[in-house]
Amino acid sequence: MLFDDAPAFPRGFRCASRNCGLKPEGKDLALFASDVDAAAAAVFTRNQFPGAPVILGRETIKGGTLRAIVANSKVSNVATGAEGLANARRMAAAAAKELGTTPDHVLVSSTGVIGPRLPIEKIEAGLAGMSSELQSDPLVGAAGIMTTDTYAKALSARIGEATITWVAKGSGMIEPNMATMLAYIFTDAAIEPATLDHMLRDAVQLSFNMLSVDSDTSTSDTCAMLANGRAGRVNERQFLDILVAGCIRMTEMLARDGEGAEHLIRAHVTGAANGDEARRIAKSLVNSPLVKTMVHGADPNVGRLLMAVGKCFDCTIAPASTDASINGYQVVRGGSRVDFDEAIVRDTLRREVVDLEVSLGVGAASATAFGCDLTKGYIDENAAYYSS
Amino acid sequence: MLFDDAPAFPRGFRCASRNCGLKPEGKDLALFASDVDAAAAAVFTRNQFPGAPVILGRETIKGGTLRAIVANSKVSNVATGAEGLANARRMAAAAAKELGTTPDHVLVSSTGVIGPRLPIEKIEAGLAGMSSELQSDPLVGAAGIMTTDTYAKALSARIGEATITWVAKGSGMIEPNMATMLAYIFTDAAIEPATLDHMLRDAVQLSFNMLSVDSDTSTSDTCAMLANGRAGRVNERQFLDILVAGCIRMTEMLARDGEGAEHLIRAHVTGAANGDEARRIAKSLVNSPLVKTMVHGADPNVGRLLMAVGKCFDCTIAPASTDASINGYQVVRGGSRVDFDEAIVRDTLRREVVDLEVSLGVGAASATAFGCDLTKGYIDENAAYYSS
Repeated sequence: MLFDDAPAFPRGFRCASRNCGLKPEGKDLALFASDVDAAAAAVFTRNQFPGAPVILGRETIKGGTLRAIVANSKVSNVATGAEGLANARRMAAAAAKELGTTPDHVLVSSTGVIGPRLPIEKIEAGLAGMSSELQSDPLVGAAGIMTTDTYAKALSARIGEATITWVAKGSGMIEPNMATMLAYIFTDAAIEPATLDHMLRDAVQLSFNMLSVDSDTSTSDTCAMLANGRAGRVNERQFLDILVAGCIRMTEMLARDGEGAEHLIRAHVTGAANGDEARRIAKSLVNSPLVKTMVHGADPNVGRLLMAVGKCFDCTIAPASTDASINGYQVVRGGSRVDFDEAIVRDTLRREVVDLEVSLGVGAASATAFGCDLTKGYIDENAAYYSS
Repeated sequence: MLFDDAPAFPRGFRCASRNCGLKPEGKDLALFASDVDAAAAAVFTRNQFPGAPVILGRETIKGGTLRAIVANSKVSNVATGAEGLANARRMAAAAAKELGTTPDHVLVSSTGVIGPRLPIEKIEAGLAGMSSELQSDPLVGAAGIMTTDTYAKALSARIGEATITWVAKGSGMIEPNMATMLAYIFTDAAIEPATLDHMLRDAVQLSFNMLSVDSDTSTSDTCAMLANGRAGRVNERQFLDILVAGCIRMTEMLARDGEGAEHLIRAHVTGAANGDEARRIAKSLVNSPLVKTMVHGADPNVGRLLMAVGKCFDCTIAPASTDASINGYQVVRGGSRVDFDEAIVRDTLRREVVDLEVSLGVGAASATAFGCDLTKGYIDENAAYYSS
């Protein structure tokens, strides 16, 4: 099995989490640290109202070296102006002091409600002494960054002597674009920052950037990767393969645990004119509220698949060559509905993982997007998110 | 008051509707007829899997003249291949025979589930004798094209000696693009087809094309306008003003009656770099599930307004000059959240009509988009639409 049952950290990485008083209960502050300086790369949200931690993080990551990541949940420190940026800097400084490094080696993340002032005093007080609690279970850190996630998410995999560990949170306001939600990747492989940056961008393009829970793009999305070199060199081709596989697996976990979700939906588009069109059509399928409710209700309203493909106005689509299947069962052939067995389609839509396959027959490009069904749980969580 | 309390038809227009057996109960077949040939214009869906009636309609409207519109609900005749197109032609022929005109003077529409074969025999049988039932209440025809609408929608307004009457249905799979849902506009003003076409496109751009219930674009969207000239010439500038006002009013009715909706949401964007960006940002606001659930729950989570603006990656946005208000109450100034009174924001979000105003401060262009909140009713209707 590629991924370990119990996720573990690579050599030299540890984490801790605490409740520092931002949430009434549960962890709200996480610290991830490397014993030594680590090569680092990161991608951030393309939302044009980036949070203060993202503005600071773009500056920090230019150095290509990190010792730590400090993250809080509950308040995202977005739309908070100059005071917000100053508070993000204070958060980096407090973590650096606690770990005996400099603020420019600390990446800051905040996730939660947009708008309110960051309670920086609580975070500074919470960080004091936290280095003494650093330990080796990545799920401890993952718990500190959760918002509406229903469980803490971490994965690890081995490559030769080295380990890769993924920690992430997701749930809502999720359609990462050229970035992702909070996702941190740690490895003890020795990789140069420039190579790490290329690898991270390649992996994110195939995984987190193909994820959508609700088509809304967070102002806090951050994906960072740290490589501390403690395990020495690895085969970079194999490393990239495992990196991509882990990012896709984590993307599936985020989609399946989307707010209110009961199904993971994967949209596989093949035969597209080019990669960009394949990605847009796959995204259109997982973003369509009518496709999402079709899966939720196990309602064999398969014409909606064509609707969601056809509303990609600028993509090359030839109805006569368009086929579609659900979990391998064909429902559309040549742009027309097949006379299918409704009971079979209903049954297959009830599976926890629903694979929608669309073959366009106009080219050789393909893409897979990851999403979830739309449920009343999503509405419950988001009609009172601020107030609850 | 601009619009009559009880909508009426212009001179020379009448309609009828029947149950022809497509639905277990309720009207499912509508016929709109002019006593004389009328100048006509129409716009259709940009979805790349247009229904058979849309394919036929594009051909029919080239003539610039119509005598009638025939429309059925329940089955949309989409993804039905060559047989579907033949059935749309049979539907035009049956209506033409009933009215004593030719099939190329009849516009056909079908709305409902995508995929199933159109029961053309039932429609042909239903049309027989229907001309004897033609009468003057546009709501009778509006009832025949309803799917999940909660009430039949028609409006009328006077301009000099002439009348304009709008009939439409909406509800779900609604983000018209360069077209609209089924919407028919009738007037007895004398207007040339080419002028009519320009006027219709101008009006649709400001109204139906700014509507989104759920970001999904129907394969059947059709908006047609008939002018039979019975009232003679009108002031075309005044006519266009009233045409636009009526299209916007009908758009608001469609948004407010969106599937499961409890609120009409209007997003007003000003100060944009250009009209295209103003429209995209306004649409982004009414399409955001998190903005929609914020309104639904009257939850003052106003940071979501910035999120929805900022995810328009390619638009010109300057956070420092971005302001936002809800029903006139300011919540964002210079890209940062204002320290507002939460009770006031909660109260104003409970109004049936919620106006979101975003001022970008980067240019002089503006746009208004029309949408609705996202509720559990939407999920109920769409998780079993095919099966119910």
